Parts: sequence; C-alpha cells; structure tokens
Amino acid sequence: MPLESAKTTAEAEAEVRALQERWVQAVRALDIDAIMACYAADVVAFDAIVQLQFKGIEAYRKHWQYCLTLCAGPMLFEMDQVQVMTAADLACAHWLCRCGGTDETGEVKASWMRASASYRKTDAGWKIVHEHFSAPFEMDSGKALFDLKP
Amino acid sequence: MPLESAKTTAEAEAEVRALQERWVQAVRALDIDAIMACYAADVVAFDAIVQLQFKGIEAYRKHWQYCLTLCAGPMLFEMDQVQVMTAADLACAHWLCRCGGTDETGEVKASWMRASASYRKTDAGWKIVHEHFSAPFEMDSGKALFDLKP
Repeated sequence: MPLESAKTTAEAEAEVRALQERWVQAVRALDIDAIMACYAADVVAFDAIVQLQFKGIEAYRKHWQYCLTLCAGPMLFEMDQVQVMTAADLACAHWLCRCGGTDETGEVKASWMRASASYRKTDAGWKIVHEHFSAPFEMDSGKALFDLKP
Repeated sequence: MPLESAKTTAEAEAEVRALQERWVQAVRALDIDAIMACYAADVVAFDAIVQLQFKGIEAYRKHWQYCLTLCAGPMLFEMDQVQVMTAADLACAHWLCRCGGTDETGEVKASWMRASASYRKTDAGWKIVHEHFSAPFEMDSGKALFDLKP
C-alpha cells in the first residue's frame, strides 16, 4: 500500500472509531438527538426487534425513541471485539455488544448481541449508513438465545 | 469523484456482485466447497442460529455443513433489495434474504431474513470477510419473527 494511502486509511479508521465512541456515549446517555446525529439521512437499519428493516432516518428515529422507553435505570451498553476496515471514504465494522440494564431489585440483566455497521464519509463527516443488530435463535424452539457468552 | 476513481468503484461493484451471484448459486446447489471458496481465511460470521459468532474459515465451514444438513428438497434462497457500496479494495452490502425449502407434502416454507456482508479484494480476488444473518425477535415472547414481509 502506498504511504499516502496507508495514512488516509489510518486517519479514516481513527475518525470512524471516534464516531463509534460518540454513538456509544449517546446511547448510554439515552440522548436521541446525539444518537441520530450519527446516522446518514438514508440509513437502512436491521434492528434486533420488531421489524425486518427501518428505511430512512425518520423511521429509525421513531424506533430508537421506542427502544429508549424500554430502558429503565442505568444502561449497560459496551462494544467488545471491535473490528474496523476502512478505505478513504467507506468503512465497515463489526463487534459484539453487551446490552442490558438494572432491574427494580438492582440486579444487572445483560445479554451479548452482535452488531455490524457500514459508514460513509460525507460533507458532514462520517455517518452510519447501515446497521445490523441481532441475537441468534435456537433452531428447535425459535427462541432468541440471550445467555450466550463470547 | 475523479473519473479513474469512479471507474475503479464501478469495476469493484461489478466484481462484488459477481461474487454474490457465485455465492448464492453455491448455496442453492448445497455445494460446500463452492460456498467456502467465497470466504476469506479469517472470516468472522454472525449467523442466525446456534452461536454468537464463528471465527475463521474452518469453524464456519463446519457450521455451513451443519446448515446444509437442515435443507431437505429444493432450496429457496433469494437476495432482494441488495445494496452494495464499494471502494477500490473494500466493499459492504446488505439485503433481505428469502430462505426456505419444500416440506414432505410439497409445500414451500420460507421466511424473510436480513443479511449484511463486508468484502476485501485479495490476491485471490474479492472474498467475504464478514457476514451477518438474522431474524428479528418479538420483545415479549423472545421468539424469532418468521412471518414478517418486506
């Protein structure tokens, strides 16, 4: 890889990781405006619940607002085993996500999920253009597997 | 975008779509060698069932072999609403996938799933380096939603 290209790719990776950090902090803060500032207007999202897909930032904002109503108490939201691949203006990433919260008795309830995302560099900086969250399910019961450990 | 760069990106997209076509044909043919030829050695896969992740081509081959044993009769495997984003040597894609088969009474049983993938151009051509398949689940029951329509 030419030196200039390697520099561009390393800069792109640092910028994408900074976006991921803003996104994870916004989710922990339950801050809908800060969350949505991370997405492109034409984002296509495959979330873990409810629908096959959410097309466009308005549809996804409504879904995020619903998701935030499900969170009571301090939110647990951690990214683990993050892998980022970058070109000058395109990036992809995947990671495991530990999501959960504290129930009324003070007990932490959390599950490991999987996440993938794609990013584009736009005039307004890097934005998430695609996101995919899920839990795997068990074949026989069709039930999501919430107790798996990495 | 400079003309040369636009040409490179268009060529990359055509090559990635050709890889997707080889992959989908290999899956329909239940051809494990042709399926695995589409993946990079260090692929990280988040499949819809069983485990959180499969790391490396040997682990994913074993899982694919298990998946193929679940398929009886002609296999239904169609990609819909495919979006591909490319740079010179990196690409991401996402689509809806209609998966199913024919049961012993001849009835077609199929569900819509979601899929995302990342690709790298290697010395051996484009390879899938990350793949994520899933069905969304219902919040209350924790059951995968197999009856959703796009």
